[in-house]
Amino acid sequence: MSRLDSVIRRLEAQRACLNRAAELVRGIDGAVIELGLGNGRTYDHLRELFSERDIYVCERQVAAHPDCIPPADRLLLGDMFETLPAARFLIGHVALAHFDAGTGDAAANLNLAAGLRPLIVALLCDGGVLATQQAMDGPDLVLMPLPEGVAEGRYHLYRRV
Amino acid sequence: MSRLDSVIRRLEAQRACLNRAAELVRGIDGAVIELGLGNGRTYDHLRELFSERDIYVCERQVAAHPDCIPPADRLLLGDMFETLPAARFLIGHVALAHFDAGTGDAAANLNLAAGLRPLIVALLCDGGVLATQQAMDGPDLVLMPLPEGVAEGRYHLYRRV
Repeated sequence: MSRLDSVIRRLEAQRACLNRAAELVRGIDGAVIELGLGNGRTYDHLRELFSERDIYVCERQVAAHPDCIPPADRLLLGDMFETLPAARFLIGHVALAHFDAGTGDAAANLNLAAGLRPLIVALLCDGGVLATQQAMDGPDLVLMPLPEGVAEGRYHLYRRV
Repeated sequence: MSRLDSVIRRLEAQRACLNRAAELVRGIDGAVIELGLGNGRTYDHLRELFSERDIYVCERQVAAHPDCIPPADRLLLGDMFETLPAARFLIGHVALAHFDAGTGDAAANLNLAAGLRPLIVALLCDGGVLATQQAMDGPDLVLMPLPEGVAEGRYHLYRRV
């Protein structure tokens, strides 16, 4: 499998999981939070899926495509280890959180995911969903089945219980 | 269509066209040339498709993934307007050239494509194929049908006549 094959498979898995997550939270009130804006591609996809919901975005320093920059009052600017606990109005009010560490360093990505996990879990409402490239197994989260065609472990969908 | 949808569609079209180009040159002797290395993803795909052929790569300054850096004796380092005419050993000996200007500036991409066109055509052997994101219509090149599922104009396949 070439790197071209591999990136296509990764992006398709990401899209399939976001679309599935949208179905999973259909009956659940709450905001959406994008944990890391990056180039803004998945934020743009979330905007399409959740045009009726408030979408908050965490980012250390915005460097996205100009069309994909969230409104200032939806942006949690800074280090997530500080901005997430400070966003008290979101605690328990998030229906969907999406996380993709997005660096090429797998070990660093997993470390970051483990560190952020309790902060993210605290945001989720009952039944809220976490879609994440990095595994975040542990208490309070139940692993949900992946969409067809997405290989085990490539993405993760959890429901808060 | 979100930017996530859009990048998936673009990469799938690129892959389908490279795969089709490989079929088109199956009976034709000659080298492969990648006009612009970028992150090295399509070069990696070309390596898979053409493991038996010499693959030359043009790049101004190599910044690809470490796994996708061509051997030094296959690298034409510098400005293509200088390196292509200087690579006299390739003139008329290329079975497949691949070009994707790859910047976000559509007008600049088309300008670059138009400027490089005569240099690229000179490389192609009889029956050689040019796969390019940017249109390069004109003398000596016949437009070939695109693979199924690739929208007209999204990619271009030409055969040198």
